[in-house]
Amino acid sequence: MASRRSVQVYLDLLSQPCRAVHLLLSCTGIPHTVRTVALRKGENRTPDFTKMNPMQKVPVMEDNGFILTESDAIMKYLSTRYDVPDHWYPRQPERRARVDEYTAWHQSNTRPHAARVFILEVLLPVQTGSPVDEVRLVRALSQLEETLERLESMFLRRQPFLCGDDISVADLLAICELMQPLGGGRDVLQQRPQLQRWRTRVRSAVGDAFDRAHAVLYAVRERHAAKL
Amino acid sequence: MASRRSVQVYLDLLSQPCRAVHLLLSCTGIPHTVRTVALRKGENRTPDFTKMNPMQKVPVMEDNGFILTESDAIMKYLSTRYDVPDHWYPRQPERRARVDEYTAWHQSNTRPHAARVFILEVLLPVQTGSPVDEVRLVRALSQLEETLERLESMFLRRQPFLCGDDISVADLLAICELMQPLGGGRDVLQQRPQLQRWRTRVRSAVGDAFDRAHAVLYAVRERHAAKL
Repeated sequence: MASRRSVQVYLDLLSQPCRAVHLLLSCTGIPHTVRTVALRKGENRTPDFTKMNPMQKVPVMEDNGFILTESDAIMKYLSTRYDVPDHWYPRQPERRARVDEYTAWHQSNTRPHAARVFILEVLLPVQTGSPVDEVRLVRALSQLEETLERLESMFLRRQPFLCGDDISVADLLAICELMQPLGGGRDVLQQRPQLQRWRTRVRSAVGDAFDRAHAVLYAVRERHAAKL
Repeated sequence: MASRRSVQVYLDLLSQPCRAVHLLLSCTGIPHTVRTVALRKGENRTPDFTKMNPMQKVPVMEDNGFILTESDAIMKYLSTRYDVPDHWYPRQPERRARVDEYTAWHQSNTRPHAARVFILEVLLPVQTGSPVDEVRLVRALSQLEETLERLESMFLRRQPFLCGDDISVADLLAICELMQPLGGGRDVLQQRPQLQRWRTRVRSAVGDAFDRAHAVLYAVRERHAAKL
């Protein structure tokens, strides 16, 4: 029996922002139900799903009739409403501002740049049957390098996590994007020991939930490797 | 004499996010000092400015030694720290989540799509001396139309402002982006009566500060028109 108050999340775990929401729910123990919306089967375009989210995108959260989109907003709402440990989204204004600063920056940097590499190396070749567009890939990798450089030299310069001494929703959003190119066998942090150490800290803070959330991505990597 | 606690903001009012920060400060009466950083003169690349913000971007805020970037984060921080009227960034979790939802969406929709039109029609021709790239402009306008459509059919569907019954930081971020193409003489809301009414409501809620913040953009429009 579901309790009267229960969070439902509509996710496809191959989507980076969906995994970030999933990790937060797993780490904080907020009671929730996951409804899978398989993007590759077009389940995000069914009439029922479109009624809930006319944008036809995941993740979507429903909490007692309140429907919310955008991973960033969902994670901040859940942290507030369910009173999770403060480090996930600190209440102190300066510390909270650091998380808001990263998440805003993330939308035009980490997210598009890492996603682009996965799209070019994995998604487009599968969808079109054409080989990887090497020119566009080189450009995408170079933009991603700039983002990685800034993650190291600015956000991680003087602290173990992106926004301070402990893990926050910012780290979850970032790690899920930076894991994505692994679907094509590419570890984008291979030449970045500082970011590798950060990834190890994040994995350790998150625990088993990390590999559970990434199981679908690991399966994509296996299939991709088998084709080569 | 400056009080010990005083906000300093580093802005170029030709930048849309800078205007949004400026409008919030003007509307709420938070004591502050504006330092102009003229992007066209490269004042964002001086050693002093780079030391403060290695990203070399505006806006930047300094509050009692606390330095913050990203307009989104700055506006939310100021609203919290200076206890401004609640409607700007509501404390109630569901209402706040609506603002966070729009501002996250904004970063990959309203912001890049409106900015692109201004870049193609005004900035690039001035910088390169070449005529407007009509093919890219048509594509940019079509992407912007999709964003405008969603602003109307989703965010403004049942309410006068983007996130509810009253103006919030979301409306400031949005209006400043949607005003930008006016620098090239283009009113992107011309065919959109619903968004025009919203713009009238925002202008009326903001008052004289609106035209003061946009004076630089109006001057660009005059110069652009004189050249045609």
